[in-house]
Amino acid sequence: MFEASVYLNRRKALLERMSSLMTGDKGVAVFLGNVDAAMNYRGNDYKFRQDSSFLYFWGVDEPSFAAVLDLDSGDECLYGNDVDIDDIIWMGPQPSVASKGELIGCKATAPLAEFDKVVAQAVSAGRPVHFLPPARYYNTMKLSSLTGVAFESVRKVAPMDVDSGRHASEELVKAVVSLRLIKEQCEIDEIDKACDLGYLMHTEARRGCKPGVLEQEIVGRMEGITLSKGWGVSFTTILSQNGETLHNHSHHQIITPGRLLVVDAGAESNTHYASDFTRTYPCSGKFTTKQREIYDIVQQANDLAFSLTKPGTSYWDVHCATVRYMLEQLKALDFVRGDVDEMVAAGISGLFMPHGLGHNMGMDVHDMEDLGENYVGYGDERQRSPLLGMGNLRMARNLKPGHIVTDEPGIYFIPALIEQWKREGTDKGFVNYAKLADYYDFGGIRLEDDVLVTPEGARRLGSRRLPITSADVEDVMANE
Amino acid sequence: MFEASVYLNRRKALLERMSSLMTGDKGVAVFLGNVDAAMNYRGNDYKFRQDSSFLYFWGVDEPSFAAVLDLDSGDECLYGNDVDIDDIIWMGPQPSVASKGELIGCKATAPLAEFDKVVAQAVSAGRPVHFLPPARYYNTMKLSSLTGVAFESVRKVAPMDVDSGRHASEELVKAVVSLRLIKEQCEIDEIDKACDLGYLMHTEARRGCKPGVLEQEIVGRMEGITLSKGWGVSFTTILSQNGETLHNHSHHQIITPGRLLVVDAGAESNTHYASDFTRTYPCSGKFTTKQREIYDIVQQANDLAFSLTKPGTSYWDVHCATVRYMLEQLKALDFVRGDVDEMVAAGISGLFMPHGLGHNMGMDVHDMEDLGENYVGYGDERQRSPLLGMGNLRMARNLKPGHIVTDEPGIYFIPALIEQWKREGTDKGFVNYAKLADYYDFGGIRLEDDVLVTPEGARRLGSRRLPITSADVEDVMANE
Repeated sequence: MFEASVYLNRRKALLERMSSLMTGDKGVAVFLGNVDAAMNYRGNDYKFRQDSSFLYFWGVDEPSFAAVLDLDSGDECLYGNDVDIDDIIWMGPQPSVASKGELIGCKATAPLAEFDKVVAQAVSAGRPVHFLPPARYYNTMKLSSLTGVAFESVRKVAPMDVDSGRHASEELVKAVVSLRLIKEQCEIDEIDKACDLGYLMHTEARRGCKPGVLEQEIVGRMEGITLSKGWGVSFTTILSQNGETLHNHSHHQIITPGRLLVVDAGAESNTHYASDFTRTYPCSGKFTTKQREIYDIVQQANDLAFSLTKPGTSYWDVHCATVRYMLEQLKALDFVRGDVDEMVAAGISGLFMPHGLGHNMGMDVHDMEDLGENYVGYGDERQRSPLLGMGNLRMARNLKPGHIVTDEPGIYFIPALIEQWKREGTDKGFVNYAKLADYYDFGGIRLEDDVLVTPEGARRLGSRRLPITSADVEDVMANE
Repeated sequence: MFEASVYLNRRKALLERMSSLMTGDKGVAVFLGNVDAAMNYRGNDYKFRQDSSFLYFWGVDEPSFAAVLDLDSGDECLYGNDVDIDDIIWMGPQPSVASKGELIGCKATAPLAEFDKVVAQAVSAGRPVHFLPPARYYNTMKLSSLTGVAFESVRKVAPMDVDSGRHASEELVKAVVSLRLIKEQCEIDEIDKACDLGYLMHTEARRGCKPGVLEQEIVGRMEGITLSKGWGVSFTTILSQNGETLHNHSHHQIITPGRLLVVDAGAESNTHYASDFTRTYPCSGKFTTKQREIYDIVQQANDLAFSLTKPGTSYWDVHCATVRYMLEQLKALDFVRGDVDEMVAAGISGLFMPHGLGHNMGMDVHDMEDLGENYVGYGDERQRSPLLGMGNLRMARNLKPGHIVTDEPGIYFIPALIEQWKREGTDKGFVNYAKLADYYDFGGIRLEDDVLVTPEGARRLGSRRLPITSADVEDVMANE
């Protein structure tokens, strides 16, 4: 964890932003940490992962903690239970809750049962009770039962003056997003470490990409590295020769010469900061001409996007420029025909890249996605597009120093999608299906780096960049 | 997964057992598979783990499935949703729900929304609706909302004629436990494989146990093996030089000469069967005399328990005989003084081993613990002891061929517990605290194998046994 002042300053900043958003009785902001999540039975739990916003403001990386920040008085209190002899036998001696409070600069601490009482008091006094939309079912239940907000409204975000505030607080969501979106130097340092761990994972994957190897074998070795040196994976590893499936989590195939292996994976540091990289490897160590043509387009698109990433532009515009570049190149190869401007407007790139250029990254690999993708990636700046691909863009904001985004263009040949477009005429005559017919067994290619927006432009995170040009990839694979 | 006939026969057997337990309108048995469990936000989920009982009867290892078995008509139906184009883009083409039904010999399938309707119909017709106590919060909520059973009663188990059946079904729990407790040959084969994977994990741990190594480094390498060749770990790995803490999950210490390293870890196969082994290593490669004295008692106790494990005895009796042996040996070393029979009756062994000798193991490492420890490990055969240690015994049943149990005696020196007993006189004068004063920094020792009860006696599972005698451990550590 960071120094106490880091957490203290974050809570102070939160208090200020909340105050600037409201007048009158501001109420209380309540924060629920996560409880353990049962894997197959309660007691046999998944590895504990704290709620990211709780960790950001309150630092405690253990189950069953909560906190309240009084937005009127500025009073704050951390709630948790001290251990008893039974806990000591099973879990060992633990620092007191009071000493945990000291580590985050929070002087007041109390048993967890007091939290329920304090929230009940605020509710019965008619004070606004601000909470974030919870990711977990337990916290959804808990907030519903504490506040009396209907279960189905707990995750609904709206301004507190709507429907008597019986929902998650838009004011709190906006304040939290505004803080967490701009990374502090101590966070950037941790993300650089997570990226270095991602580098090791991907190096292991590339070395494992040899004909005859089971995909699962490689995945296990990669994840072993993240567990040895970090918290684990920042998301379920995508490693597949069916790269046309964007989030493919089955790893039962054998690496086969002639195919492409998409590896999209990242690590979470012990301090819970993420990395997220994608590389695509030729399973035989060399790209075919057909593969290289597509690969080079994606690699150039990745470079182009990076070169455009800087304050003064938006990631919306970077996405648009990148897919325009890819359409130009796909036109040169005769996959599409017609005017590129018209194709961009018609969303033709969605057939080849049905996802956005990238997303915010921080403590969560899609940062703060539990708070609502539009609050995080769009704010009040622009409206989401209804088009496939463009509409899947998770980060569209005007770029500012401290933003961390992924740069992950891709080109995929998805037989079911191509057939659907053909059947329904979605392509409006731009697509050359005769050419595509030869690409149904191609798979897909995606290339992804993690990028920090700096005052001057941008910096790729991590101390080393994974080999990415087709020549460099072939070179390094030939020597390992 | 297994052949369709395996699942079909299990459901047939369940139907018969339920029929034998009830008269009149038997009602319906409903089964909820698990949904994805959010790690930090919905969509960034923990690795999917199906509910074990769902997997046992319905075989489908994917989120968001459910099933109904009509106990009167014998009709059965599997519920799940076929994929749409959006799913195909992200998750790839998927077999139909109907074809998944065929794989488990279930002819009727329907969309998930139909499940809700069928349950609602049974409820409104006043038919008994049997369900198992769910491990997960989502399924707790879902069952409460479907059946109208109060949220806090969904996990309460009682006979269906109590309180109008508004709780989990004791009849269903008993029928499921009676089936899952006795392992089929196809299950034993899978557990043997999980044990072989456990062997590889522990071999990696022993080789990693060298002064200067970070504990987390070893844990990561062990878990990487389970992910490369199986589903992952069957429970969070316990690897600690603070072995006196029974379930220690922090791994931030450096391996230090002179200390003991307790490694309690197991693998889950790709088919979701568990293994669970414990070994304790001298960090310097050689036991001190003080360590060896205690180690040899635990190792002999482990052997003794195995030799007593056979049909015709109970695991209650095996536990008692094992702790009696340990008390005799501790008496010989002057840790305790007085009559051993009286010490056993007074529960003095609980100071040194505050846990039971072992537990059932199968698809869950503590098999079926979500259904209730007493239903699984005691049934109607005996009552749980109130004593520390004895009372923590999870498996006390009369042994039958097909039972799979762990054999895991241990001796620990837990300063907080010793101080408490001393302060409160819990030891009734049997304990020699002067001797114990020299053991506050000793740590703990636990040694665990997985054992199948056979018609003739018992067999240790896995094709090879991890080195366990103090001589063998030192030997193998000297050569690696």
